Amino acid sequence: MGERMKRKIRVVQFGIGVIGRGVTKVLVKKGDMRIVGAIDVSNVGRDLGDIAGIGRKLRVKIRSEADKVFRQAKPQVVVHTTGSSLKKVYPELEKLIKAKVNVVSSCEELSYPYQKEPKIAARLDRLARENGVTVLGTGVNPGFLMDAWPLFMTGVCTEVKEIKVSRVQDAAHRRIPFQEKIGAGKTKKEFEKKVKDGTIRHVGLAESIAMIGDGLGWKLDKITESIEPIIYRKTVKSSYLTVKPGLAAGVKQVGHGWKGGKRLISLNFEASIGAGTSYDSVSISGTPPMEVIIKGGTHGDIATVAMLVNAIPKVLDASPGLKTMKDLIISALINKSS
Amino acid sequence: MGERMKRKIRVVQFGIGVIGRGVTKVLVKKGDMRIVGAIDVSNVGRDLGDIAGIGRKLRVKIRSEADKVFRQAKPQVVVHTTGSSLKKVYPELEKLIKAKVNVVSSCEELSYPYQKEPKIAARLDRLARENGVTVLGTGVNPGFLMDAWPLFMTGVCTEVKEIKVSRVQDAAHRRIPFQEKIGAGKTKKEFEKKVKDGTIRHVGLAESIAMIGDGLGWKLDKITESIEPIIYRKTVKSSYLTVKPGLAAGVKQVGHGWKGGKRLISLNFEASIGAGTSYDSVSISGTPPMEVIIKGGTHGDIATVAMLVNAIPKVLDASPGLKTMKDLIISALINKSS
Repeated sequence: MGERMKRKIRVVQFGIGVIGRGVTKVLVKKGDMRIVGAIDVSNVGRDLGDIAGIGRKLRVKIRSEADKVFRQAKPQVVVHTTGSSLKKVYPELEKLIKAKVNVVSSCEELSYPYQKEPKIAARLDRLARENGVTVLGTGVNPGFLMDAWPLFMTGVCTEVKEIKVSRVQDAAHRRIPFQEKIGAGKTKKEFEKKVKDGTIRHVGLAESIAMIGDGLGWKLDKITESIEPIIYRKTVKSSYLTVKPGLAAGVKQVGHGWKGGKRLISLNFEASIGAGTSYDSVSISGTPPMEVIIKGGTHGDIATVAMLVNAIPKVLDASPGLKTMKDLIISALINKSS
Repeated sequence: MGERMKRKIRVVQFGIGVIGRGVTKVLVKKGDMRIVGAIDVSNVGRDLGDIAGIGRKLRVKIRSEADKVFRQAKPQVVVHTTGSSLKKVYPELEKLIKAKVNVVSSCEELSYPYQKEPKIAARLDRLARENGVTVLGTGVNPGFLMDAWPLFMTGVCTEVKEIKVSRVQDAAHRRIPFQEKIGAGKTKKEFEKKVKDGTIRHVGLAESIAMIGDGLGWKLDKITESIEPIIYRKTVKSSYLTVKPGLAAGVKQVGHGWKGGKRLISLNFEASIGAGTSYDSVSISGTPPMEVIIKGGTHGDIATVAMLVNAIPKVLDASPGLKTMKDLIISALINKSS
């Protein structure tokens, strides 16, 4: 009875790709939320329930005109899942904010934009405050595994000297698109080409490093990144591919945060057929030292959808402005002359 | 230059026992905080620096009259570390709130008081709002390991069915007071007596279970707790004690949260000489399932001090009222008919 009387949170899904459909599937299970609109340039006019594959119609049609959807549906929050580039999605975010709707977005460059796009970050923050809404970029990575989670674990530290975070994924049993995305089976030359044209790339390492640095009060003077193929000396297999020695079995992306020549933050992102094991880990050199491991690793797709949905109530409660996962966590405070 | 211009956070330490001294030792290292007062009924008139053992005077004298300290020192926040019982420390908390000072407290029963002391919780919340201050109970346990941390990890879950949390400590190399506190070397009868008179007891399991339950939207109908000695079949030793088979080597305290006959939350707290290993773990049955482990476990004393200090800026930023660690975390939202 109390359940029906209580008003449900009105949510619009903006972007009905893989993540948007995943979010839809989860939102329909949450008793205190209601999907009141859907925006995309594809499948216009189709029912969101059909496109999301939930097995029934939602009686919410996908529309392309965001303004119309906001006027009619009057949402409190939009889950925004259209792209990774902050410059590209900025016009969409601006539109959402001016419609006075709170925003939870999967845009990786929004997860911590202050270092790479400080002007856009400042503009978003100002706009959000003026319009009385909150904007948050989140997801599994960036958004949790390689930034929020390590920061959270520092809450029990009186001092932190260095942080290392690893995400290692064995791609042998992952879906075919994932095995392709990591460059498995490619020659070194083909791999390098795919890196150049951006088809092999985890977006967010620099953002995660900047978030950890700021979260701990470290004034980093340099953030470096590198990406290379993982090449094994033996043949490795998945149900889809056989990768001979010398060919790329996957990708290793490493990022570092430096201060005064010291490497304070190390992020190690690996995915390969033949990794043999999957795990996520945080290693804190500090007082006390902390070695934390997620055995088997975290399922990325489910986790991204979860973070977006679970953030909704927090975003509604938060004060207006641009927020990041760092704002929502207790982490270790910097010591003098650190 | 910017550092000196920026105003330091003015902190009063209320309670100069083991934890209070630990907090003092850490506070003096934080460049953005300043200890402006100290309150206790012991060591009145002594310099806090001397009592805390930091190797120099702080020019802050320990006083017994809290009101005088607040008037003269004008703190923004008090770190309150006087006791575990909410009923007992309530008058102190009321005094702090009426002096319009924000409060971070190590009182275990304050970490999540809504289930066991709902009237006190409501009163504290109302008083805090009326006086425009924030009150937070925190620490390593309760406050992090067996509540906030598991809740935080559910942030990547679209669904949670059950949670198990373990804290296992090998007491062989811990300080003598710790080995005594866990009943090591006692006969069963002696152990039971110490449980009865409250000298063997970890306060906070019920609070942690209630926090997890509310954090996940589970309306628990029952919280149960049990405490028993850990008895090994072989002799176990520490540098201090030899424990023969049949004697208590330590304590095992277990708490459960139930709903409709189903056990949804299990907290397992163990400390013994001869445990052989130390670790903290979170096991989530859900989507996705999560197995997380802190290898070697978390150093409890350091972590408690860290949580209290690191919470200070968050408490200053938060809106007025009684807060708990649950309020500061993104965790999994409940599904319909869960």
